[in-house]
Amino acid sequence: MAGFFYPRTASGRASLIPSPPWFYSGDLLTVEYRTDPARVAELLPAPLSLADEDPGAVALIWADWQSCSTSREELLDPVRAQYKEAFVVVRCAFEGRTYSRCVYIWVDKDFAIARGIHQGYPKKLGSIWQTRPHPFAQAAPQLGAGAVFGATLAAGDRRLAEAVLTLTGESPANGFVNGHPMAHHRVLPGIGRGEGDAHAELIESGASAFEGGQAWRGDVELRLFDAPTEELARLEVHEVIGGYYRQVGVTWDGGRRLAELPSV
Amino acid sequence: MAGFFYPRTASGRASLIPSPPWFYSGDLLTVEYRTDPARVAELLPAPLSLADEDPGAVALIWADWQSCSTSREELLDPVRAQYKEAFVVVRCAFEGRTYSRCVYIWVDKDFAIARGIHQGYPKKLGSIWQTRPHPFAQAAPQLGAGAVFGATLAAGDRRLAEAVLTLTGESPANGFVNGHPMAHHRVLPGIGRGEGDAHAELIESGASAFEGGQAWRGDVELRLFDAPTEELARLEVHEVIGGYYRQVGVTWDGGRRLAELPSV
Amino acid sequence: MAGFFYPRTASGRASLIPSPPWFYSGDLLTVEYRTDPARVAELLPAPLSLADEDPGAVALIWADWQSCSTSREELLDPVRAQYKEAFVVVRCAFEGRTYSRCVYIWVDKDFAIARGIHQGYPKKLGSIWQTRPHPFAQAAPQLGAGAVFGATLAAGDRRLAEAVLTLTGESPANGFVNGHPMAHHRVLPGIGRGEGDAHAELIESGASAFEGGQAWRGDVELRLFDAPTEELARLEVHEVIGGYYRQVGVTWDGGRRLAELPSV
Amino acid sequence: MAGFFYPRTASGRASLIPSPPWFYSGDLLTVEYRTDPARVAELLPAPLSLADEDPGAVALIWADWQSCSTSREELLDPVRAQYKEAFVVVRCAFEGRTYSRCVYIWVDKDFAIARGIHQGYPKKLGSIWQTRPHPFAQAAPQLGAGAVFGATLAAGDRRLAEAVLTLTGESPANGFVNGHPMAHHRVLPGIGRGEGDAHAELIESGASAFEGGQAWRGDVELRLFDAPTEELARLEVHEVIGGYYRQVGVTWDGGRRLAELPSV
Repeated sequence: MAGFFYPRTASGRASLIPSPPWFYSGDLLTVEYRTDPARVAELLPAPLSLADEDPGAVALIWADWQSCSTSREELLDPVRAQYKEAFVVVRCAFEGRTYSRCVYIWVDKDFAIARGIHQGYPKKLGSIWQTRPHPFAQAAPQLGAGAVFGATLAAGDRRLAEAVLTLTGESPANGFVNGHPMAHHRVLPGIGRGEGDAHAELIESGASAFEGGQAWRGDVELRLFDAPTEELARLEVHEVIGGYYRQVGVTWDGGRRLAELPSV
Repeated sequence: MAGFFYPRTASGRASLIPSPPWFYSGDLLTVEYRTDPARVAELLPAPLSLADEDPGAVALIWADWQSCSTSREELLDPVRAQYKEAFVVVRCAFEGRTYSRCVYIWVDKDFAIARGIHQGYPKKLGSIWQTRPHPFAQAAPQLGAGAVFGATLAAGDRRLAEAVLTLTGESPANGFVNGHPMAHHRVLPGIGRGEGDAHAELIESGASAFEGGQAWRGDVELRLFDAPTEELARLEVHEVIGGYYRQVGVTWDGGRRLAELPSV
Repeated sequence: MAGFFYPRTASGRASLIPSPPWFYSGDLLTVEYRTDPARVAELLPAPLSLADEDPGAVALIWADWQSCSTSREELLDPVRAQYKEAFVVVRCAFEGRTYSRCVYIWVDKDFAIARGIHQGYPKKLGSIWQTRPHPFAQAAPQLGAGAVFGATLAAGDRRLAEAVLTLTGESPANGFVNGHPMAHHRVLPGIGRGEGDAHAELIESGASAFEGGQAWRGDVELRLFDAPTEELARLEVHEVIGGYYRQVGVTWDGGRRLAELPSV
Repeated sequence: MAGFFYPRTASGRASLIPSPPWFYSGDLLTVEYRTDPARVAELLPAPLSLADEDPGAVALIWADWQSCSTSREELLDPVRAQYKEAFVVVRCAFEGRTYSRCVYIWVDKDFAIARGIHQGYPKKLGSIWQTRPHPFAQAAPQLGAGAVFGATLAAGDRRLAEAVLTLTGESPANGFVNGHPMAHHRVLPGIGRGEGDAHAELIESGASAFEGGQAWRGDVELRLFDAPTEELARLEVHEVIGGYYRQVGVTWDGGRRLAELPSV
């Protein structure tokens, strides 16, 4: 049986995702803010704890991606290559190191969900939009001071978040919250009624290669909305840290197990 | 941390799916046919083997579902309750018993994907349509001899299957291929580059409760189409066995592990 | 050139919609309420005026349709037959008669938009959901006292309306607001900059044939939400009249011009 | 009553599209080829005739747009600004001039359909994808010789067209078929059964302002697929002329009537 992911077949051709490495080219719109650290702590199961410094810092990131595997064949059938996502990152500590951790994420393609299951991103489907820069200004900003970008997130036919970012100048980085290796749980509940998890581990991963263009910093308006099956709005915006825009190229090629875990 | 599935939170409210039991009311359009048993065998990893009897039998099933958890709250926000699916079932043998096994499946909601990860269904997103019966005939068949139903499946912007079912009379059952407990693999590739599976098990599950209306049998036209990332058409139609229509109500409440497995 | 609608070709096969008559089988969930009649009057261009009786009555109707043309071929490729809609109906007077009038409507297929352009329904795309009754109660209500239905409407990634209907008993009708022939404008702005309409007429149409099952009446909760490009919430809910559920079959086969109009 | 398009209201806020001018920034992937001129002639109703020169030339164009009105507010809620389209352009003659004419077009947003009804583009909904260039090559081509782009079109859950474009060098233009003012019919069938058109006119329009980047030329593979409700594949590919990629900025601000027409 061949195939990195399900469904496995003789050839492996039907697998929802091919083997890593996976390659990404895309645009990141990042909003960083501070919330009550207790709300962050709620999302950190043992053995994780709050980061020592700025423990209430949150990054809400929109990304407009094109992605592919080593064959690059997805790029010629771009319904299989392009996707958008919005995700929420906090920081945490494990064995004396600081990690980033994605606590909520929405994407708009199934192959992105499957990658998330592998990488420990808790992906749901959503509708994600962000303004695109373009060389011609008729209906687009150009990267530079004064450019204005909008970004929205919806799921279940409800709007969950919207942001407006007005660039003010160049920046040495596009934020700090998503700047560490990711510490993610990968869990699979046991198949029996009321069992704990059949599989639970803490893993670490991050880009194996990265290129980034000039980062831009800007002013931010951010609104979060409640919904019956979402808890994003519980990470209330106490203070905006800043907003950022950056175009990047990323390679992801696996990670490593940090800890095998009891049921969480 | 609470929540049956990811993302886990203090309250568990954001979990993509709530705990079983899960409840389903829906309409099943089933097409059964025979293919080359060698093509079925290709989809049966050890320790499974071909069923003794009629090993090349395949069921291609369309289902139009409304579903909910014990709270039934999804039914009042039906974007969270309704979904459609098309799936392919074969039979196999394990330790002297015959099982059904879903080898390919497409759904149109993320909560259905998550349930599939739990139950071992290899779910992708697709676009699934089947004619609905209705009390008024202006634009609908009524259940009974002569009624004609169409069913189609697409994924990745390509049509993968289409069927036409013309009912000819009552039937004692809606097929036999999907009539056994399901034997499914649940696998999670290891996070490290080139590792085998971090988790692999064979599980059994099936309905914990079932009600069904009168089943109807009919004549079938069936066409399967190839696609670069799908292998459904490799299960070539050698001989149509029959087509069926039945309305059902189902409860699913977990299963049991048949075997812990090495990497598959 | 053949074809009822665009694109017209030698064969007419590509036309987005075939010629009427059009046939519909579906389920209607209707909520009727009273708003400020001045808000209704705002939506009635000359030569229409407020209805004499109960001029602030509004019907918000969800419909889950299967539809086809005379060939019925759409029913076998149901992506071309099934669609959902939510629409808002008020009443008005013209030359001494009372008419119904659809002031807002959202659908989820392009063929439904095209029919609306022909019939004078101001259709936009939306995401529309309503609970479905089913013979098996695991995850569905059955038509009858006590059944509970939810209905939601979203567009532009924002929820616009949601209703819950709890049936209390049989009803002689499923409301009165949508009970008259429709009086609709059909307008096409002139192609030149700042021109008035190139075409503007007032037309009348309605079902040419109709069948309906038992209507049910019930209690209603209704919430409307504002959005930057929608004015549904401006029709504020002052008093709920009632809610209704009914399964129907309808034929539509054209209408007649009531008045050719100057630019509106 | 205010509002450029339906639904018209007191404020005009709910109008599906605001008044022109409309602004566009986007990327065009163009494939030009020759088909049998008789197949083009079939799509040219009187008073149009085949172009004198190269009458069988066809352009199949994919476009990835961001668009807005004068307020630019759509750019901050980009679900209202971004859309994709694929469209087929031929040339024709009217009163001694050569015009371009869109004979088939698919888009993925309702506001784009509404603009098409105004401009005479015969828009249907479709699923349209084209590879995007990006500054970082991990999963994207960069504009320049050797870059490879894929483009696909589907509607009704069937793939209708796919192209691969490999850039070979700079080009003075991105094709010639779509280089003239557009000559489009705007027609509305009469509301009465079997009536001819209530409105039919021939209009001319084109960009009121245009900027374009360097155009690139390339080699093309093109495949068209048949479908029951489409006639694109009838414009068979006899000879590929060339493929092009260009980023553009466009303003559209109305047109003018060429002829009022009897029913077509």
